[in-house]
Amino acid sequence: MRTIEWSKNNTVVMVDQTLLPGEYRVIECTHLSQLCEAISMLRVRGAPALGAAGAFGIALAAVRSSARTMDSLIRELEVAAVTIIKTRPTAINLSWGVARVMGAVKEAYDVEGMRNIAILEAQQIADEDVERNKQLGAHGAKLLHDGDTVMTHCNAGKMACVDWGTALGVIRSAVEAGKDIKVISCETRPLNQGSRITCWEMMEENIPVTLITDSMAGMCMRKGMIDSVIVGADRITQDAVFNKIGTYSHAVLAKEHKIPFYVAAPISTFDFDRYEDEIVIEERDHDEIRYFHGIQNAPLGVNVFNPAFDATPMEYVTALITEKGTYEPPFLIGELKP
Amino acid sequence: MRTIEWSKNNTVVMVDQTLLPGEYRVIECTHLSQLCEAISMLRVRGAPALGAAGAFGIALAAVRSSARTMDSLIRELEVAAVTIIKTRPTAINLSWGVARVMGAVKEAYDVEGMRNIAILEAQQIADEDVERNKQLGAHGAKLLHDGDTVMTHCNAGKMACVDWGTALGVIRSAVEAGKDIKVISCETRPLNQGSRITCWEMMEENIPVTLITDSMAGMCMRKGMIDSVIVGADRITQDAVFNKIGTYSHAVLAKEHKIPFYVAAPISTFDFDRYEDEIVIEERDHDEIRYFHGIQNAPLGVNVFNPAFDATPMEYVTALITEKGTYEPPFLIGELKP
Repeated sequence: MRTIEWSKNNTVVMVDQTLLPGEYRVIECTHLSQLCEAISMLRVRGAPALGAAGAFGIALAAVRSSARTMDSLIRELEVAAVTIIKTRPTAINLSWGVARVMGAVKEAYDVEGMRNIAILEAQQIADEDVERNKQLGAHGAKLLHDGDTVMTHCNAGKMACVDWGTALGVIRSAVEAGKDIKVISCETRPLNQGSRITCWEMMEENIPVTLITDSMAGMCMRKGMIDSVIVGADRITQDAVFNKIGTYSHAVLAKEHKIPFYVAAPISTFDFDRYEDEIVIEERDHDEIRYFHGIQNAPLGVNVFNPAFDATPMEYVTALITEKGTYEPPFLIGELKP
Repeated sequence: MRTIEWSKNNTVVMVDQTLLPGEYRVIECTHLSQLCEAISMLRVRGAPALGAAGAFGIALAAVRSSARTMDSLIRELEVAAVTIIKTRPTAINLSWGVARVMGAVKEAYDVEGMRNIAILEAQQIADEDVERNKQLGAHGAKLLHDGDTVMTHCNAGKMACVDWGTALGVIRSAVEAGKDIKVISCETRPLNQGSRITCWEMMEENIPVTLITDSMAGMCMRKGMIDSVIVGADRITQDAVFNKIGTYSHAVLAKEHKIPFYVAAPISTFDFDRYEDEIVIEERDHDEIRYFHGIQNAPLGVNVFNPAFDATPMEYVTALITEKGTYEPPFLIGELKP
């Protein structure tokens, strides 16, 4: 199944990612409150997946509503929209998915039509995400050679999207095209999306994967163990790629070892009108580093710096891989503007 | 107390570093098997501390032996020496401490003299380590400026030595000389000596310390948060510094950001007659990365690469700080040969 889907029972089903890799459990959200809990607890995560989650949330609210007039249903959906967006206020895709379904339902002629349109539009968003990733994967796969070992950081895979993935989608597409690809997955501190989710995804697909700590990237590159690096992106400005903390270090190391450094991201990730210095990087809870699953890992009350992302200047990027094709800096990202 | 000591009961006592920072517990080794377990489980760790541990191990074997002739005691100690060295094969100081006591006992005239000499020589090694670190610290402190923020990796502190420390000894000496120094400590995956031990040591001394994940070093350097990097060393060959995995990545990042990269290590760490390619880097248990304090952190049976150390070529090193003074490459390390 996909990471998140609309079910035949008119409910939303998803893989609970907080249980991976220990357990693969599919949970069913019959009411909006369950879906919101799943989003805020990171049971579903990743920018593209959250776009679909927001969209399915509006569909779920429409289906569960007992409203008999279009006006009263719209009012209910507006409350639902606010509720959904509040679960992860900085996730731009979440509000994007919500807004797109809200816009679509207003085209309906009656209450039942609104419900149907909400479901269809949400499913369309999910389908488009998969299609876009497959296009992106096909472009990126051309950059990988038979026998390559590819290093990745965090999880820009199927589990961050509706299906297929961005960085891992490129790897999937290369394997599908018959290339022998091995993966080195950095564990990705502090939340270990690399060890928990990327390794799990690759093992599910029988793609050979080796787990390392983030700090081993330099040694592995120097030993000739890595042919290229592929990461996803949370946001791409005119001058820099914002992605999971640690990405910039890998980019510098790749440059020093003359290894290609690729960023795989859909056009929706591009923030065409902004520059690095306009973006504020959120700092996350310090206990993410002080504790590990509740086990003390540092002295009580130690100072911590815990930025969620870092910025990699465009000059470290060998190519940006999008659904429209592959682009090598220096180029103006504005040229990709839809 | 010191990190490791010979007790009045003719046993070896040490701080169990695997319990830090949650608990400060002193353990007593009455037999060599306990000491070897403590070394292999990293209850005692760090190159200089292992020199003393190896020396105390031979003393412990001598004291516990019931041998009645010098020949039979020598044969027993030779077995003990092999047993000790096998616990951490890459740690040159371990074999250095063992060899020095082995050499000393051969000067004795009888079995009881051998036992006494073993104890005295091991204690002498421990005393010399403290004296050497204070000399090293005084030389290195001149490289730090009032107001500097210094990044370090792993723990090359008091707890890696008998006392005072090498990399952290330089920081202690600079603070003692009246300089205002702040520390950024990388957590140092997979065993978190940075978060557990370096942060604890610095907080004990009221030296301001901020904990980051290893992957944040690049971002912190780029943001101008780091004035210099100081690390210890497990072994220094003609061409490279062997130290905790992750050191090489930091060295590359420091070079990219034009930040001085210092290695603080006593002359005993130098392997004067060898080159990098002659040294085998031990790979540690894969479950160190798959699990965290017994909690599953990656899919069962995932491939892992877990080298204990990496090698940093000498061209990345701004200066080597030793008890004899500070040396800037390019220079022939053979010039330091005692």
